[in-house]
Amino acid sequence: MKEDKDTRYMREALKQAEEAFSKDEVPVGAVIVYKDKIIARAHNQIKTLKDPTAHAEMIAITQAASYLQNERLNDTTMYVTIEPCSMCMGALILARVKRLVYAADDKKAGACGSVINLSDKQELNHRIKIKRHILKEESKRLIQEFFKKKRNKIRFSLN
Amino acid sequence: MKEDKDTRYMREALKQAEEAFSKDEVPVGAVIVYKDKIIARAHNQIKTLKDPTAHAEMIAITQAASYLQNERLNDTTMYVTIEPCSMCMGALILARVKRLVYAADDKKAGACGSVINLSDKQELNHRIKIKRHILKEESKRLIQEFFKKKRNKIRFSLN
Repeated sequence: MKEDKDTRYMREALKQAEEAFSKDEVPVGAVIVYKDKIIARAHNQIKTLKDPTAHAEMIAITQAASYLQNERLNDTTMYVTIEPCSMCMGALILARVKRLVYAADDKKAGACGSVINLSDKQELNHRIKIKRHILKEESKRLIQEFFKKKRNKIRFSLN
Repeated sequence: MKEDKDTRYMREALKQAEEAFSKDEVPVGAVIVYKDKIIARAHNQIKTLKDPTAHAEMIAITQAASYLQNERLNDTTMYVTIEPCSMCMGALILARVKRLVYAADDKKAGACGSVINLSDKQELNHRIKIKRHILKEESKRLIQEFFKKKRNKIRFSLN
């Protein structure tokens, strides 16, 4: 069976998350699509860049703005493997991203309803359409595997 | 009379805001202080970089993390001429900035109480001490002057 577009693009975001995993970064990946074309691909690089703002979503937004030569990303869709945090949702709103598709919820920091909901703040002047839980299990499994590996490493280093 | 530290550092942030103004950017400036030393100075560069994430605060956080070679900015204070938006407050929380001092409120997008309040979200795992309205009038004047100039330009171009 042919997969729908949202699932196909989310697979590309998952590939980015796997890339982060291979670099020992929390595995989160994002892509941005404009007119049926991927114009940005990024993964979490906090440790690599020693930069707390280097979330996958932020890097993807900067890439897409550079590609479009415009600080407004009208008519774009972001696919990200985890529910964005407040920083990233704030950036998506500033960038006027039209649609957001995410995989797994983030119960600790998610800003699309899990901890806070920035997506429906009328005062913020721009609302983003949200679709949740596309390839949710795949994304969760990757994150769980990452933290299991981390814990084992710590246990090993304590022995 | 000698000015207190907060006022002196805010003057440095205001200098950055003036720098933004001179480049035709919305005049917002920020500095980050660690152990009584300015380790980051930045101004809004959205238009210059064509990047919706290029707020003064974001650039300053990246600079400070690079200076400290650490993605956690423990024991730092940020001085910024306008109340941070959701993106920037999210970033300040992720970066574990200890203290935030800002000048003027942002009634349209401020995330320290004006539109939303991210500073006291217990779920977000880190709280930032906030001091408001240091050199508020100076910052407001600069912003008002900027938008007055913009409006005049538009009026002129319509004639």
